[in-house]
Amino acid sequence: MPTVWTDRHRGHATDGGYWLGIHLPGDEEPERGDALRAQLVAAGSRIVDAPDLGLLPVLAVHDERFVDCLRRAYPEWVAAGHVQDPGQPLVVPYVFATSGFAARARRDRPPTTIRAEIGLYATDTLTLLGAGTFDAAVAAVHVSVHTADLVADGLPAAFAAVRPPGHHAGPAFFGGACYFNNAAAAAQHLRSRGVSRVAIVDIDAHQGNGTQEIFWNRGDVFYGSVHVDPGAGWYPHFVGYADEVGEGAGAGATLNVPMPAGTGDAQWLAGLATIVDAVRAHGSEALVVSLGVDAEADDPNSPLQITATGFREAGRLLGELRVPTVFVQEGGYNLGHFAALVCEVLHGFGERHG
Amino acid sequence: MPTVWTDRHRGHATDGGYWLGIHLPGDEEPERGDALRAQLVAAGSRIVDAPDLGLLPVLAVHDERFVDCLRRAYPEWVAAGHVQDPGQPLVVPYVFATSGFAARARRDRPPTTIRAEIGLYATDTLTLLGAGTFDAAVAAVHVSVHTADLVADGLPAAFAAVRPPGHHAGPAFFGGACYFNNAAAAAQHLRSRGVSRVAIVDIDAHQGNGTQEIFWNRGDVFYGSVHVDPGAGWYPHFVGYADEVGEGAGAGATLNVPMPAGTGDAQWLAGLATIVDAVRAHGSEALVVSLGVDAEADDPNSPLQITATGFREAGRLLGELRVPTVFVQEGGYNLGHFAALVCEVLHGFGERHG
Repeated sequence: MPTVWTDRHRGHATDGGYWLGIHLPGDEEPERGDALRAQLVAAGSRIVDAPDLGLLPVLAVHDERFVDCLRRAYPEWVAAGHVQDPGQPLVVPYVFATSGFAARARRDRPPTTIRAEIGLYATDTLTLLGAGTFDAAVAAVHVSVHTADLVADGLPAAFAAVRPPGHHAGPAFFGGACYFNNAAAAAQHLRSRGVSRVAIVDIDAHQGNGTQEIFWNRGDVFYGSVHVDPGAGWYPHFVGYADEVGEGAGAGATLNVPMPAGTGDAQWLAGLATIVDAVRAHGSEALVVSLGVDAEADDPNSPLQITATGFREAGRLLGELRVPTVFVQEGGYNLGHFAALVCEVLHGFGERHG
Repeated sequence: MPTVWTDRHRGHATDGGYWLGIHLPGDEEPERGDALRAQLVAAGSRIVDAPDLGLLPVLAVHDERFVDCLRRAYPEWVAAGHVQDPGQPLVVPYVFATSGFAARARRDRPPTTIRAEIGLYATDTLTLLGAGTFDAAVAAVHVSVHTADLVADGLPAAFAAVRPPGHHAGPAFFGGACYFNNAAAAAQHLRSRGVSRVAIVDIDAHQGNGTQEIFWNRGDVFYGSVHVDPGAGWYPHFVGYADEVGEGAGAGATLNVPMPAGTGDAQWLAGLATIVDAVRAHGSEALVVSLGVDAEADDPNSPLQITATGFREAGRLLGELRVPTVFVQEGGYNLGHFAALVCEVLHGFGERHG
């Protein structure tokens, strides 16, 4: 299957973030995107460059004020003189409109300084903005939406080789290394291209709280995720439990399958099989896969123990759905072999999907 | 009037916080409390030591889970090995349950790690917890509640010389150098001592978003604040606008009087006079004053331009209410003379209150 790509991702290079008051080096940096592309090329995938699609596909799944705040954040930050390191200024949030504090906060009357306004939307001190972050995050949406276009045009499947990842970005929040929700934008684009029911299946090690929130009240887009139990102390910490199932028209169209720390292939694949069954029951006519591979045993960011064989089998399970499929890259931070594991999923899928 | 005091405040010494990714030195450190006490002694005030009143007065105005999280935060943080500086470990939040992210977050199912749980309640990266922070914040509540007891027992007025300050701490959130809400605890204690209607008047340069939130739906405790306009780019950024007036039984019992940057005595005192009129209309039988003096011209944390004469006149206006009055220290960060300005307010009050 083809790989959709843009080298515009390289503008996002924030060199890590702040964790508990310590600056940590980053593992979601430009070389990660380039390593992914190289592996797909080596695997024989054709590379398709994504066009510039402007802001509309971003606004299809995100609040306009949130998008505009991220657009202005870096230049306004620098203009305000908030420059820690003259060599590389970074937007580092410090005040946050948490639910209690902001019970009275109104999005239609945002703070007049960017250092406070960003706190309406930021959820951590790890997800920083540099000079090229906004454009790179928008470009990632272009890649995923163009991938959806290829599939809507008739390709059985295509892969969006994006960074930054997206599934922790919600209607009006960003965090967890994510700014805009690439998978949600692809699903929404499939809907706008006439697919009446779409499923998003998220196999990243972490629950996609942003995706869940975007489609929480909708029945037309199913969201299913197998991930490490947030109750075991893992991101996104506050959400991702099995009793979160959607509401209103979306009641039952969200399925969370949390896994204990240390889970290996068999239990993880059984969880994924449950989700695949639910996708069938939903009647989804197309599939978007949030393809994180940080559930692998050697990934620094998760305690799951999935092997290459497990990832290939996951691809097979997804392929058995036999619906047009958009793969969107999410996490995977072991630079040495995450891209090879992505290829395992895609190969497994191809074996069954045909 | 007597000054109620505890030297337990000295345990709270976090040496500043993190602002936009930079460690800033603190201006709310132990020497601030000691400077305040020295000035009151010099002014002839009798010093009364506050007894240990346990956690009940804290729980009277704060959510139990929030209080328990702050109680456990430091020892659990250290036990988890989150130690930036072995000489002085500090709880530095990094992930925040902002409203969008946490739409699904449930306080009855908090994260299992302290580094995430603290994010249910933290609102910034400036308000850190060290080894003695919890005990010092509880002790400040003891001081303010004991001050309320003296007044309920028949004293016309008394001063709670507390730190850390409290008016940015809400039912289940902390931030802005505040952990527990001393003024709210004093007002609630006056209610429990049989005063049917209480007013809190907040003359700190910043709006007391925590106090506002605690009494938002209540008519028995009026909250009025004159402060720098949050729309001019000042903390608490998201709230403190004139159209925030309370709801339900509390509709009309909240009064926000924001002032433009640069406001001097005349306009500020006119704003305070409006609040004093509203207190009369409310029929408050006792008064709690959130006595911050950071509106002074030379304070680094506000752009207001209030003089010593202005503070004395503010005291006179409050004294004219002629109701039993509990003064509770809030902000004021110019160590050279903030305590002298506190005395100006108290002296002005004494001139009229009799």
